[in-house]
Parts: sequence; structure tokens; C-alpha cells
Amino acid sequence: MSKFFSERFANLEPYVPGEQPQDKQYLKLNTNESPFPPQHEVVEAAREASRYLNKYSDPDNRKVTEAIAAYYGLGYENVLVTNGSDEALNFAFLAFADEKRPLVFPEITYGFYPVAANVNHIPYETLPVGDDLLVNYKDYCGIGKNVVLANPNAPTGVALPLNEIEEIVRTNPDNIVIVDEAYVDFGAESAVALIPRYRNLLVTQTFSKSRSLAGGRLGFIMGSEALIADMVTLKYAINPYNVNSMTAAAGMASIADDTHFKNSCKAIMFNRDMTVEGLEARGFTVIPSKANFVFARAEWVEGGELYARMKEKGVLIRHFTNPKISDYNRISIGNEHQMEDFLDILDDVYNDMKKEGELREDQ
Amino acid sequence: MSKFFSERFANLEPYVPGEQPQDKQYLKLNTNESPFPPQHEVVEAAREASRYLNKYSDPDNRKVTEAIAAYYGLGYENVLVTNGSDEALNFAFLAFADEKRPLVFPEITYGFYPVAANVNHIPYETLPVGDDLLVNYKDYCGIGKNVVLANPNAPTGVALPLNEIEEIVRTNPDNIVIVDEAYVDFGAESAVALIPRYRNLLVTQTFSKSRSLAGGRLGFIMGSEALIADMVTLKYAINPYNVNSMTAAAGMASIADDTHFKNSCKAIMFNRDMTVEGLEARGFTVIPSKANFVFARAEWVEGGELYARMKEKGVLIRHFTNPKISDYNRISIGNEHQMEDFLDILDDVYNDMKKEGELREDQ
Repeated sequence: MSKFFSERFANLEPYVPGEQPQDKQYLKLNTNESPFPPQHEVVEAAREASRYLNKYSDPDNRKVTEAIAAYYGLGYENVLVTNGSDEALNFAFLAFADEKRPLVFPEITYGFYPVAANVNHIPYETLPVGDDLLVNYKDYCGIGKNVVLANPNAPTGVALPLNEIEEIVRTNPDNIVIVDEAYVDFGAESAVALIPRYRNLLVTQTFSKSRSLAGGRLGFIMGSEALIADMVTLKYAINPYNVNSMTAAAGMASIADDTHFKNSCKAIMFNRDMTVEGLEARGFTVIPSKANFVFARAEWVEGGELYARMKEKGVLIRHFTNPKISDYNRISIGNEHQMEDFLDILDDVYNDMKKEGELREDQ
Repeated sequence: MSKFFSERFANLEPYVPGEQPQDKQYLKLNTNESPFPPQHEVVEAAREASRYLNKYSDPDNRKVTEAIAAYYGLGYENVLVTNGSDEALNFAFLAFADEKRPLVFPEITYGFYPVAANVNHIPYETLPVGDDLLVNYKDYCGIGKNVVLANPNAPTGVALPLNEIEEIVRTNPDNIVIVDEAYVDFGAESAVALIPRYRNLLVTQTFSKSRSLAGGRLGFIMGSEALIADMVTLKYAINPYNVNSMTAAAGMASIADDTHFKNSCKAIMFNRDMTVEGLEARGFTVIPSKANFVFARAEWVEGGELYARMKEKGVLIRHFTNPKISDYNRISIGNEHQMEDFLDILDDVYNDMKKEGELREDQ
């Protein structure tokens, strides 16, 4: 830390993204990326936009905002597009939370929330989850604080039903409820339908996962006109031209092709079912997931050890050191071939450990 | 404003970018864009990157950071790339300024500085410029506050020589000096050469103007390893994947092609000279510019009126309402053909006003 760094950030812990090691080619099942490259139309739209990069992107991002709004049956004033949904979360935290309006979220959830709260000097409280790692929606009803919920939750993949989300929104009318739906397209219910009825609801989504645009950085946040207008004010003070023109064009092309989108999501859900079966057949307990990943543990191997042994064999999965979940690993769902490889290598790890007498049940 | 908006931002005035009207095709000389589209190699690099958008961009932006560092003779640890240089400025303000370490900048400069200071609750002071609108570097020597200077300055285009910048940096060893070099490639001296010698210097640059990538959003900030490390910490807390992969690829292709870059800059400087001559021949006073724009006023027409009459004839130039500069307009330098059209239309405006008896000298 330099002597010039503001003391406001003396204790700041940055968010740590999933590792991207460059030492060899891995089967990457650790960052919830889509295994499907973007379709031809998306590539062509980005290319066409790249020819005019000497011109600024539209600071209002009007066309892609209108396309997203139309897709969800909302108006242009109900949507703000952002440079990934992390930027949307940052704007929402900054706009609506402060010393007097703290945040509350589950103790087990997306690791970016406490980081973004800390950097903005927003106090927050975390509520415990059960031993099953499930969020109990009743804990958030009438809590009188700004609520942030990933739905489906990360890294568990568990989704709350829409009526439970609505109950949280309805019973906190003087506070904001932010529903982070980064993974909603893989089988969960979206809260978008509630936006016309609740002025205190914000829903974030992203093109990173279900729309194969992680590297493009396109997220968005939806809510009442007044909430979106407040965040637009902040965006124009922080980063007026936040979305580049290639990404905006790619996003529009993606929205225009609903068949490709729905087929991709279906394929992931199919592969998820196959992976869950395969894991259960190998002695794993898998938390029921509505996301493009599963969270699983086995009696026969400690979580950190499984992670390390899989990495040695060229497979990256995500392990978290928080003791409450350190026996688990999060496995992103890839294509059929990748998931078959994953299960085969898991068998190799099991056989190695058995040979070495290292299986946990033996000890 | 919604009832949920944090009272911290009750009085926030967002930055207002140059207008981008959609009602008809304008000759756009109002946002300092390059008239030259990006070269073939840049378009192809972006296209190739777009094929892999299902994968996250590298959160460290390692390759493009290394390319920029090598170009300027610096190390990887001396550079942070950002989503446009506005994001770099925002990170720098946030990292190094606070209640106890206010900012100081000229009263006439880039309008984003006060906005970014306000949104981050950083106190700032503005120092007056002379009647000639020039910054006197001595005002900033030994001032004991964090200094922000656009060099060349906006919207005047005037550049301070390197020895004056160095004197400011040298005499404020306990404070940060941020030199915003968005327009440096059009004939001014860069302070990059001072970075190895001063631990309190930060230099921002952008691919938006001289490298024809305004729509790609690629900026960067350079300084000592310790200063950059502090900003990296913030970046990972605010927006870990801040630069998309297409833009990173486009930036690398641009850096690799120095001939195209230098020729573009030369063409702009040539057209600037031609435009200055043309303006002076038409009774304008033009402030000596080292940027890709000129700031000019004429005895025969009030600044706001010239702006409005040019717009009516399809030419957008930038007018600022601040009374100190409201008699001026900022004119971006386009290609030769555009600048000839600009001067022709200026003649039309003069002739119209003469016919109408509206020339200021007549009144």
C-alpha cells in the first residue's frame, strides 16, 4: 500500500475472481461460463460495430436498452445497462444504501456483495443459512433493511420461488430489495414480473452466462422508473460511456435470437441433470440447483483435496475456504462431452485415492 | 428522485456528455472523436476476440497491459487499464483523495473532474485561470494538495511544457499529481518520462482520440508500482472484469501498428493548422492548441448564437454556458474535407447574419 492510499480503504479486501491459470489447458468448470460460443449473428454484429469505433458509443445505450426492455415487457425507463452486472450491483448499492440504510444478505452468497459494500462504506449484516445451506425467506420478511438476494443463490444454486421473493418485497416497502438473477435462465422464476407492482424492487441480470457473453461485459438492472433514474444519475457521474459499442451490438443480436438462447439454456439444464446423476452415483450429495453449476460434497473426500486433485489432472472447479462450505466444490456445467470427461476424471481421482488408502471413509 | 435515493447524492449534478442528436445526420465536431475509422487489423482483432465471448475476459487484462507498458518503456506493474479513462480518473480520485486530501484543479478544465469529486464526496478547490484562459503552473507548485491537470487542457487545448509539469510534481512530494493526457498525442509533451523518477505522479491516457477507439472504451493510468497497486485493489472491489475482451484485443492491435497511429495524429495536426488559419481569416481569435480541437471566439458573433446557427445548418460544435467561456466554441478537428465544409458553413452563417443585420459589430 502506498503512503498516498486513502485511509478509507486501509482494510479493503478485494473480490477474488475464479482463477484463470495460464500454465496449461484446463477443463474450466470454475467460473460458470457458457460452453457455447456466441452465435454467428452476434459475432457479425460486434464486427460491424467495430468498424465505427472512432465514434463514441451512445452514453444512453438506447438501442440495447430498448431491446432488453421490450424483451421483458418493460419500458426504456425501467432498464439501465451496465458494464457487467457487477457494475449494476455497485450502482445499486451506492444509490440506495448508506450508513443509515444498511444492507442485509445471506452469509453464504455471492462474494462480491461484502466487497462492494465495504468499498462504498456501506454497513451490512449477514443472516445465517441452515445446515442445508438454504436461505429461509421468512428471515428477510419485514426486516426493514435493504435486502440483496442472489436467486438462484451462489454458490449453492438454490432458487426461492416467486411467491417467497414477492413476500420479501411486499413486507419491506420502505427498503430496496435487489434480486440478483445472474443464473435465473436455467430454470428459476424471475421477479421481473413483479416490477410493475413494486416500486422498491430491483432485478439484475447478465448476458455473461445464459447468453454466452461473459467476455463482452453486459449486465442490466430493472426496476421502477424512479429507481432507474437515480442510478442513471450516478452512472453519468461515475462512468458516462459505460458500455462499448461492440458489446451493445452483440447484446442486441443475442436478444434478437431467442431460439438459440432457449436451446442453450435447455442444453445446460439437460447436462446438469446428467451431472447430478453422475455425482450421486459416485457418492456425492448435490444441492438441488437451478443454476448453470452444482454445489456438491462427498463423504470420501474433503473439498479442498478434491479441488487440488482435480486441478492436478487438468480440471478446474471452484473451492471456497469458508469453513461452512469448505467441504463442497462448485462445478460449472459445460457441454455433454466436458461433463463426461469431468465424471471420468472424478473416477480417476477416486481410484487413485483408494489405491493410496486416502479415502476419507477409510480413515 | 426516488424516496430511496441516498441523501449523500441529493445534490449530485451528473456530467453532461456532448450531445448526440439522432434527428438528422450532422457534421459532428463536438465530441473530439477521430475522423479516421480504426484500421483493418483492429477490426479483425476485435472480431476474432468476439468468437470467444463465452469466456470471461482476463480480469488482470494482462496482455493489453503488457503491450501498453512496453510501448511506454514501463513495467506491467506501472499500468492499469480501464473502461475508458473516466474510469481511471474515478479510481484515482477514490484511491488518493478524501476529506483530508482534497483535490485542486483549474476553474476551466474537463467538466468530469468536479462531477467525479462530488460523487465520491471529495472536497475540491478550483484555481482561477487568467483572462487568456491559461493555467499558470506556479499556482500549483508546492500547493500541498492533490493536483489534477488536463494537459493539454480542455476545452482550451493549451499544453504546459514538461518542465512546468515536473516542477508541480517535484514541489508536491506528499501529494498526488494526476496529469490527464487524453489529448497529448497531438503535439504536447507527455509526463510519462517522469514516472520512474516520481512516486507521486499519475498519468492517464486514452485510446479514444488519437487511436480511433472512442466507442471501444479503453483508457489507462500509469504511475509507480505502489500507486497502481492501490488502484488495482479498488478495481477488484468495484468492477473486477472492467475491460471486455474485444476492446482489449482491439487495443493490442492498435498499439502494434505505430505507423497508422502516427500518421493519424499528423493528419489531425495538419488539419488543425488549416482550421486555425481559416478561423483567423474569418475574424476569430483561436487559443493555441496542442489537442484535436480548437477553442475560438469571434468579435462578430456571440458564442451561443454561433453554436445555434451552426447546428441549424447541420454542424455540431461544443458550446459551454460558463460565463467565462460562453463566448467561445470548441471545434473538434476532423478530416480535411470536413474542415473545409465547416469553414464554408461558417461563411454561410456570417453572410446570413450580415444580411439580417445581426453581426455583433453592427450593434
